[in-house]
Amino acid sequence: MRDFSTDHLALALNTASLGHNLDGHGAGWSPERVIDACAARRFGSIVFWRREVGARANEIGERVRSAGLSVAGLCRTPFLVGSEAIDRTAVLDEARASIDMAAGLGATVLTIVVGGVHPGTKGTAESLKIVAERVADLALYAADRNVKLALEPLNPVYAGNRSCLTTVRDAVDICEAVDAPNLGIAVDVYHVWWDCDLDTQLQRAGKDRILGYHLCDWLADTRDVLLDRGMMGDGVADLKTIRASVAGTGYTGPCEVEIFSANNWWKRDPGEVLDVMVERFHALC
Amino acid sequence: MRDFSTDHLALALNTASLGHNLDGHGAGWSPERVIDACAARRFGSIVFWRREVGARANEIGERVRSAGLSVAGLCRTPFLVGSEAIDRTAVLDEARASIDMAAGLGATVLTIVVGGVHPGTKGTAESLKIVAERVADLALYAADRNVKLALEPLNPVYAGNRSCLTTVRDAVDICEAVDAPNLGIAVDVYHVWWDCDLDTQLQRAGKDRILGYHLCDWLADTRDVLLDRGMMGDGVADLKTIRASVAGTGYTGPCEVEIFSANNWWKRDPGEVLDVMVERFHALC
Repeated sequence: MRDFSTDHLALALNTASLGHNLDGHGAGWSPERVIDACAARRFGSIVFWRREVGARANEIGERVRSAGLSVAGLCRTPFLVGSEAIDRTAVLDEARASIDMAAGLGATVLTIVVGGVHPGTKGTAESLKIVAERVADLALYAADRNVKLALEPLNPVYAGNRSCLTTVRDAVDICEAVDAPNLGIAVDVYHVWWDCDLDTQLQRAGKDRILGYHLCDWLADTRDVLLDRGMMGDGVADLKTIRASVAGTGYTGPCEVEIFSANNWWKRDPGEVLDVMVERFHALC
Repeated sequence: MRDFSTDHLALALNTASLGHNLDGHGAGWSPERVIDACAARRFGSIVFWRREVGARANEIGERVRSAGLSVAGLCRTPFLVGSEAIDRTAVLDEARASIDMAAGLGATVLTIVVGGVHPGTKGTAESLKIVAERVADLALYAADRNVKLALEPLNPVYAGNRSCLTTVRDAVDICEAVDAPNLGIAVDVYHVWWDCDLDTQLQRAGKDRILGYHLCDWLADTRDVLLDRGMMGDGVADLKTIRASVAGTGYTGPCEVEIFSANNWWKRDPGEVLDVMVERFHALC
């Protein structure tokens, strides 16, 4: 297993941790300023959100690489099912545009948050079938552009309106059904920490299907399921055990810190947030 | 499978659906008034909460039976693990008192909500071991008083501070480990509706271990994970499929409506709420 106690080349910043620097959250840093701050602290890579990239995919990608970093990923496709995804053509068009953006950035991985229960259906099973069909279509398009697609299961609290995909088990089921070489999963501590079946399912997924590992912590008394994530060490997730499971598959990719925290971390100076990340990564991850 | 389209003898009211009539929620109906209202609508049974019963267990139990109903259950033991459950002796004493109350009421089942991550541990695995040890102790005490104990897995969103037990799978694991004839599980739509593994795990549990089936609905845009549950039909849970799975085990016990809804159902007249329950039960459950 990699030793992270002094080395953090594996550390990736997901810009959500700085409040996206948009939407009135965070300090308003430009992508360039974020890149420089990560380079100064020797992060290995950065994950951007589409809203930050806009029409500047090539430019931002080049800027990252010239600073000695890589673009580990792009967040994310539109929801593929649910009330925002009724128009199949429109959804797949937007998803293809996000694949193009990932390719333009030189991002290794594009994350898929699948969306909630599809209108006209009940439960998660029918929606997951639609997800599989739409992902199969997108995987071909992405393969032609050297982009990998990572299905991210979200905590079941979001199953109604954000992600009918709730477990690594179900994500691996979709990977097996679609059987595309560039389709895998993203494993986020926030979403999977509670799952006693996690180790079994990660081993079932295997190294080649694990395309991302996202770090944060689950605060015992979470006040807002969207915007109250904890920094590693401040919550009750068993980070050491989860990392051992992920590493046990042979995963050697980035460890991406993604913390939505409107009332704590987003209110702090981004430089301080990055410093704490590095420190906690060495000590706890 | 039982036909509920006209018959609702299987229907049980969990008094939480009327705001407990305490704590400033609900209309302030006494247990007696609730009993009469349920009898008038030919509910089969009622599930009370400890706070409503107080020292009147025998009296309320008799009152229910003389109205032609039964007491289907009592909610609930104290948390067995987590920050409120550090003192093992105090927790088990209170849990035994709740077993005594269930016996006094003539309640068939006492529900266990196990509590969150135990202090000094991370993740759910260690806490679940402590749960199993404490439940084994309580099961013996309960057996002597003809009380059955139902482990209720809660939605993973509560894993930090209310229930490290999150799935039917893990609940059955504890049942198998403890191996007590009066220990089983309570299956609540709100907590398990998202789980693609549910049918498999219910069949694994089997008829004798399913001690309760709780009805409500998951609203797609749930605004408050504690107090924004939906009435059957208003959300995205697949009630027909879940009921078929439960019935497929051979379960013929009560179907208990438990709806925490501070801003909708708790604000309505309790008689109206009970009428809607009966109507929805016939049509949808």
